[in-house]
Amino acid sequence: MADDNIVYIGRKPTMNYVLAVVTQFNAGSDDVIIKARGRSISRAVDVAEIVKNRFVQGAKITDIQISTEQLTGEEGRTANVSSIEIFISK
Amino acid sequence: MADDNIVYIGRKPTMNYVLAVVTQFNAGSDDVIIKARGRSISRAVDVAEIVKNRFVQGAKITDIQISTEQLTGEEGRTANVSSIEIFISK
Repeated sequence: MADDNIVYIGRKPTMNYVLAVVTQFNAGSDDVIIKARGRSISRAVDVAEIVKNRFVQGAKITDIQISTEQLTGEEGRTANVSSIEIFISK
Repeated sequence: MADDNIVYIGRKPTMNYVLAVVTQFNAGSDDVIIKARGRSISRAVDVAEIVKNRFVQGAKITDIQISTEQLTGEEGRTANVSSIEIFISK
């Protein structure tokens, strides 16, 4: 599947997501994309840095994209939320 | 001064930093660098997106760098903290 190598960052402990990324690489992926929105963006950067510096030899951050997504709440109101995509290759 | 066009993101409201970036552009800068560490990284992305989408016509994000900085606490202990630099040009 095309989405196999995407890791979405939520509110779990940072190391859970580090493990998810490392698992992707160990399963044979050459590229992993880390995605996050809102306050989880800081955690996404932590995950990328920890993977690169401590767990995956030769891993490099090849691209970082930021954008704004429009979310629609239960009452139909829309809110803008920032998002980030961090591309890591080994 | 070389540091004139850097805006450091802290814990103030997001719009304070948006205003700081817009002021840099209005003062004649063609490039502004937004820097943040730790949990302020999410806010830095918000600032960049708001400046680009709402305040500075033609502004583009030209580069994003992330890294890890070692901070030394009062007791001599060191902690790793992630940081981000977002480069915006108009």
